[in-house]
Amino acid sequence: MDGNGGGRTTSAGAAPSDSTPRPRRSRLTPEREAELYTTVLALLREVGYDNLTMDAVATRTRCSKATLYRQWAGKPQLVAEALRHERPTTLAGIDTGSLRGDFGAVVAQLDALRMEQGTALMRGVLQAARVHPDLLSALRELLVVPELSSLEALLGQAVERGEVPAETAALSYVPYALLGSLIAHQLLEDESADPAFVGAYIDAVVLPCLGV
Amino acid sequence: MDGNGGGRTTSAGAAPSDSTPRPRRSRLTPEREAELYTTVLALLREVGYDNLTMDAVATRTRCSKATLYRQWAGKPQLVAEALRHERPTTLAGIDTGSLRGDFGAVVAQLDALRMEQGTALMRGVLQAARVHPDLLSALRELLVVPELSSLEALLGQAVERGEVPAETAALSYVPYALLGSLIAHQLLEDESADPAFVGAYIDAVVLPCLGV
Repeated sequence: MDGNGGGRTTSAGAAPSDSTPRPRRSRLTPEREAELYTTVLALLREVGYDNLTMDAVATRTRCSKATLYRQWAGKPQLVAEALRHERPTTLAGIDTGSLRGDFGAVVAQLDALRMEQGTALMRGVLQAARVHPDLLSALRELLVVPELSSLEALLGQAVERGEVPAETAALSYVPYALLGSLIAHQLLEDESADPAFVGAYIDAVVLPCLGV
Repeated sequence: MDGNGGGRTTSAGAAPSDSTPRPRRSRLTPEREAELYTTVLALLREVGYDNLTMDAVATRTRCSKATLYRQWAGKPQLVAEALRHERPTTLAGIDTGSLRGDFGAVVAQLDALRMEQGTALMRGVLQAARVHPDLLSALRELLVVPELSSLEALLGQAVERGEVPAETAALSYVPYALLGSLIAHQLLEDESADPAFVGAYIDAVVLPCLGV
């Protein structure tokens, strides 16, 4: 949880929690950053991770490579931040007053088309991550760890409110149950989960195993 | 469920449920068949799905290609049956008298090393299945559908015994919750789930969401 819950709300602006000094990301406006991420994902769809180059990103965005490298440590970080920026939903900062309400708010952010596009992109990127450990690290640091921390915070609020007893065994397994259902849906149905599936799954599995 | 619950217990011998006439698989002894599957999986580990050829299988097993093709429709079917034969556990035919006991029996069959090896193989094969629709079909027909049917049968027994009310919403979602947890474990921990994880997950998530 350390370092991920800062006051800034733009996902791309979250500072890494390690102590390595890095220049502040103040050179690009949020709009310009968003535009850059969109271009990175478009390139990713067109050519795949292996063939994506910082040169191509620089050319297409009319941005100098120096600027890119000032902002992102390299291609893995740029791709991971772009995916984070375009993720179909986030659990960060949700606090409706009940766990059912919180999950409902997460599901309400979902959009079927974005989920489908996101799944397709993630499948390609995860495949690339099997042979690029630096990409795997970047995905963990910039996508997985922050979302898991937000999920932990959301469940922690429910425990604090007394909705879920602190000793409930399922608390540690919710990440597997949630993330897993999305991947299993793709595998079993050969199509990505849609918002209705996620909502129904949370109602049928996640909330009941937490005793809610 | 139709056609998968026949009286034969060897996984490789299960007849397909469709009505296409196929020669009976009586030419190879079960030992010879098992040996063949072991060789197929060894080749799969060595060269990957794309580079695996029926010629190589024939040479390494000293089996004629005619025999191979009499027994299996082709490479996708041979690979899917080999994976099915070596799967780390099966839900088929388990009936201990309680749902908790049934899942306990499934977990008791698990072996950490076989799970790890199986996960590694399945990752490669699933990747290949993205570009080989015939492999995807064979995996569905020979691996996924039979195991889902067995899971459905296991849950059906619990409903019949009155352990789980028939209208329990989670009944339809158990496949996603179970299969998903295995894949999510690999993704989040970068290592395959072990038997202890599966047992704890079933106790914490699967049984509670079914109200057991």
